[in-house]
Amino acid sequence: MKVLIITGSDSDLSVMKEAAEVLEEFGVEYEMTISSAHRSPERTKELVEKAKRDGVKVIIAGAGMAAHLAGAVAADFPLPVIGVPLQSGILKGMDAFLSTIQMPPGVPVATVAINGAKNAGLLAVQILAISDKQLEQRLMDYKKKLANDIWKKSEKLRRITRA
Amino acid sequence: MKVLIITGSDSDLSVMKEAAEVLEEFGVEYEMTISSAHRSPERTKELVEKAKRDGVKVIIAGAGMAAHLAGAVAADFPLPVIGVPLQSGILKGMDAFLSTIQMPPGVPVATVAINGAKNAGLLAVQILAISDKQLEQRLMDYKKKLANDIWKKSEKLRRITRA
Amino acid sequence: MKVLIITGSDSDLSVMKEAAEVLEEFGVEYEMTISSAHRSPERTKELVEKAKRDGVKVIIAGAGMAAHLAGAVAADFPLPVIGVPLQSGILKGMDAFLSTIQMPPGVPVATVAINGAKNAGLLAVQILAISDKQLEQRLMDYKKKLANDIWKKSEKLRRITRA
Amino acid sequence: MKVLIITGSDSDLSVMKEAAEVLEEFGVEYEMTISSAHRSPERTKELVEKAKRDGVKVIIAGAGMAAHLAGAVAADFPLPVIGVPLQSGILKGMDAFLSTIQMPPGVPVATVAINGAKNAGLLAVQILAISDKQLEQRLMDYKKKLANDIWKKSEKLRRITRA
Amino acid sequence: MKVLIITGSDSDLSVMKEAAEVLEEFGVEYEMTISSAHRSPERTKELVEKAKRDGVKVIIAGAGMAAHLAGAVAADFPLPVIGVPLQSGILKGMDAFLSTIQMPPGVPVATVAINGAKNAGLLAVQILAISDKQLEQRLMDYKKKLANDIWKKSEKLRRITRA
Amino acid sequence: MKVLIITGSDSDLSVMKEAAEVLEEFGVEYEMTISSAHRSPERTKELVEKAKRDGVKVIIAGAGMAAHLAGAVAADFPLPVIGVPLQSGILKGMDAFLSTIQMPPGVPVATVAINGAKNAGLLAVQILAISDKQLEQRLMDYKKKLANDIWKKSEKLRRITRA
Amino acid sequence: MKVLIITGSDSDLSVMKEAAEVLEEFGVEYEMTISSAHRSPERTKELVEKAKRDGVKVIIAGAGMAAHLAGAVAADFPLPVIGVPLQSGILKGMDAFLSTIQMPPGVPVATVAINGAKNAGLLAVQILAISDKQLEQRLMDYKKKLANDIWKKSEKLRRITRA
Amino acid sequence: MKVLIITGSDSDLSVMKEAAEVLEEFGVEYEMTISSAHRSPERTKELVEKAKRDGVKVIIAGAGMAAHLAGAVAADFPLPVIGVPLQSGILKGMDAFLSTIQMPPGVPVATVAINGAKNAGLLAVQILAISDKQLEQRLMDYKKKLANDIWKKSEKLRRITRA
Repeated sequence: MKVLIITGSDSDLSVMKEAAEVLEEFGVEYEMTISSAHRSPERTKELVEKAKRDGVKVIIAGAGMAAHLAGAVAADFPLPVIGVPLQSGILKGMDAFLSTIQMPPGVPVATVAINGAKNAGLLAVQILAISDKQLEQRLMDYKKKLANDIWKKSEKLRRITRA
Repeated sequence: MKVLIITGSDSDLSVMKEAAEVLEEFGVEYEMTISSAHRSPERTKELVEKAKRDGVKVIIAGAGMAAHLAGAVAADFPLPVIGVPLQSGILKGMDAFLSTIQMPPGVPVATVAINGAKNAGLLAVQILAISDKQLEQRLMDYKKKLANDIWKKSEKLRRITRA
Repeated sequence: MKVLIITGSDSDLSVMKEAAEVLEEFGVEYEMTISSAHRSPERTKELVEKAKRDGVKVIIAGAGMAAHLAGAVAADFPLPVIGVPLQSGILKGMDAFLSTIQMPPGVPVATVAINGAKNAGLLAVQILAISDKQLEQRLMDYKKKLANDIWKKSEKLRRITRA
Repeated sequence: MKVLIITGSDSDLSVMKEAAEVLEEFGVEYEMTISSAHRSPERTKELVEKAKRDGVKVIIAGAGMAAHLAGAVAADFPLPVIGVPLQSGILKGMDAFLSTIQMPPGVPVATVAINGAKNAGLLAVQILAISDKQLEQRLMDYKKKLANDIWKKSEKLRRITRA
Repeated sequence: MKVLIITGSDSDLSVMKEAAEVLEEFGVEYEMTISSAHRSPERTKELVEKAKRDGVKVIIAGAGMAAHLAGAVAADFPLPVIGVPLQSGILKGMDAFLSTIQMPPGVPVATVAINGAKNAGLLAVQILAISDKQLEQRLMDYKKKLANDIWKKSEKLRRITRA
Repeated sequence: MKVLIITGSDSDLSVMKEAAEVLEEFGVEYEMTISSAHRSPERTKELVEKAKRDGVKVIIAGAGMAAHLAGAVAADFPLPVIGVPLQSGILKGMDAFLSTIQMPPGVPVATVAINGAKNAGLLAVQILAISDKQLEQRLMDYKKKLANDIWKKSEKLRRITRA
Repeated sequence: MKVLIITGSDSDLSVMKEAAEVLEEFGVEYEMTISSAHRSPERTKELVEKAKRDGVKVIIAGAGMAAHLAGAVAADFPLPVIGVPLQSGILKGMDAFLSTIQMPPGVPVATVAINGAKNAGLLAVQILAISDKQLEQRLMDYKKKLANDIWKKSEKLRRITRA
Repeated sequence: MKVLIITGSDSDLSVMKEAAEVLEEFGVEYEMTISSAHRSPERTKELVEKAKRDGVKVIIAGAGMAAHLAGAVAADFPLPVIGVPLQSGILKGMDAFLSTIQMPPGVPVATVAINGAKNAGLLAVQILAISDKQLEQRLMDYKKKLANDIWKKSEKLRRITRA
């Protein structure tokens, strides 16, 4: 397993599974589980210890509100931790945003947009690609596909407006 | 020792010592130490375990930025945890504010104003006073003194403006 | 009665009753009533005076918008006051948030998250537990249950994803 | 006395005296005093009761942070209450802003800009002018002076840039 | 006519009519019309000139987004102008809020809460009451009714919870 | 004269003159004056009427706080109005920002960054350049100079770090 | 073709077509297409190069979230670029707002309100009108129509309230 | 060279050099240069093309205000891009924050705290460490040092307070 996805609550699975889908699309081994920094601190710690033993390269952690999960993981894990601030609760994720990204010097969390689980998956792929030429090639193909999709949509728009 | 004060960084001691001063003023035993949720997670955990063994009643935790310290302590400690969001960094404490208070259901942190270490100390005294009539009496005297100070200041203002 | 819950408006009862439910779950005596700092200031003052006479240990006050209720109570009550900023109105509770927590030195309000009535109830239990070993034990059991719930949910997720 | 100015703390006098200066400039009788909604709630209540007996027409209340002073006064006073949110503390007055203006239906506070004590004084004069033709005339003269000052400054700029 | 209500757009009438309802409840003569600071600047100016000639005492102006209406009126009108920031558009009224209240020294706008049209009406009544004892008495009765309503609701709650 | 610059207060001249400097650099005729939407509304109106008669093509308006100047000008002027929100006051220009840009449908203001007077000047040049090939060429040269300055600075950095 | 409208995503077409509708209403030739600064950077660059060759006078660019489209276009295009921050995503357009307007000195983007596509179209017309008297006349007629619409609505209100 | 650091302006070098210092401390080859997304778009594009040819593994991009640099780089670069929002300008970096992190699905930027250049350097090291056991070991040692520093500071505090 290369990537571990931890989500702070089962109510966030619908967003966080977008990270898993990207990893599957790129053929990257991963596991997805649930643990909370506040409600199951020991389980969180054990998951990180196991990830270290298992040779996990990247951990993706998604949480809402006072989103400490990514930070708690980054406190123990020496390799990259990607934080996904989730839009749960009344403040629409601004709380999770600041709780995830404003880490003190010495303990970074690579943060993506609010609910940006898809980009968290892609970032994990990009990180793995630094030592995997095949993955890097697929990322370049992915970029071409993104541009191509835009081109197709604008062609469609052109045909409609000229019709 | 009744109260443990943990501050996330030695640069925050000048603010957090106001909590200590209040406890001394009210004659409450306390200890003050430094530990970070992110840079010394194991030390933080050990401090909480020791506090439980020593019969500590209230923990006051002050931290800035992605202020996870109070939350990390509250994850392990069953009695009241008071969080002081600190104004370190560029966002002036709004990050610490939301990181401290927006805790998930099940794990409360009693949060005070940004840099509100003095009120954190007072809140700890109020909590101890629920089973200590002498402390409760001192809190009532303290309230009278607050009102009296205002009265003195307004008297002084009246003399100046009438002079 | 150990805890008094005051809610600023009957429209907030559906949120504030979560505090009451926690107190019932832990077997703590409480009373719940309605009073506004602005629309019924004398009633609010009388409720606090009666609470002092009755030996109430903790007051929980929930209000929205310019949420002065907790602060008005804390001005008169010497023991812990827990403030619950409520998400009524257009600013989604950020107004109630700042109005509740940014108290001046000398008059603390132990503030919880926006709409965090459940945690307000738990915090009241934690405060009472400092002199009630049985209550402290129940809080430790509650923490175990929180962790266990997470474990069950992640087990369920594991079975689904492996199926 | 027509206008009562209450300021929540002596540290705010330097801002709040701008309200007094406007009242003096327009020849309106006033008194200025200090009282806090949280630290001297009974004094605040007594000041309002005395103002009612003395026939005060407008109360100006200035406070910072969780600025409840204007709201507490408005809860008891039936005539206009003008609130001045003050820029004390770390949040630069945004807390005082929302705490002063977001009053519930039934209890208005006429709020001015952060630190807008001068405009609070002017608003009090405008209110008194609804039944005082002389005061209304002075307000119209004041408007002309404002426009004239701008004209003079732009003339000066024109002479400089053409020189 | 004592009070003129101007609303910036017909889409805001449903909110602004709450001001009119309060004035009717208190028996205050008023007129309500539509004019925009940006789309009909001349009409706005003429309305203010006419109001001055007709002896209008208070103008209430409600607008959303870059809400300049109250400010534009206050630039020309020497007596009290009450501004109601309206929650139209995407920023939920925070834009209207700051555009209405942050007036420069010399030109106050008495601002109420976002969508606070009811309180704008009440504030107009309070202003008129400074020289109308009957109106002042009705405001004192209104305060009693507010407190009484709270008492009734809490009685109802008490009966329910005890049932 | 092609461009009229209006600044709401003489205290803002130090920022607004950056717009004038750009116009001079590009050889565009302009005039700069002072007028306030709130303190000299008639002067503001007359300036716009005169600008229409004089064939002014673009008006740049800079103001702080409840910055209505650009909007008031745009209400009367049919050609482009550029708004510069200024950082005066306690809210650091966020109030001027929203007051300037959040204009209702039908009355646009071309808004630049807070204190962005230099870019306001450049935008005026760009607008004039749509029918002035020489000006367009100078703008293309200006772009090259911007890129060249960056290149020089990075060369300097390279020499330092390699030294 | 005088105006090029680029929208960052096909999901934003429903908002951005309001700009196109205004251009059609004023008889201005335009083209509308889709391109993203991040997903199709080369296409975006080519569109700008083609616009320069085709003599396009104004480019309108609308994008949401980290809205770089207008800035990326302005980096290459020497004539006016109008930016429309779009309300896509969780932060309701505040991200797009700041990403579009806070351009560095040297590269202005004429920014309109969030979702202000209609005003973007009008601003483009105003820019073209600086050298097109007929267009200027139509803009003056448009202003009259705006004022007239308000007058009609207030007449309707008057009839209703008097009925 | 493994890491390329691009800073948007020479005025940001004092902050961005902290990233360089971390890379040096961990013995990672890097180069640091200046380029702007808006003022030198072609240079930025060429730097990315050269980085791809040279086998650069991670690009760190720091910029302020409408901080498009990291996003512009990420549009072209298939491997990890780390964005550092810088606190230049009046909004203290909140603009750079949102402009850097709120990237659309498909193009992630690994964002760190405002001015978090040191953590950007560390994150680059962590990314390289996924295929470099020696670097991973150094990161584990670094974590121990962080914890040890805290311990030393708390020891010092203990000696002071006990003295």
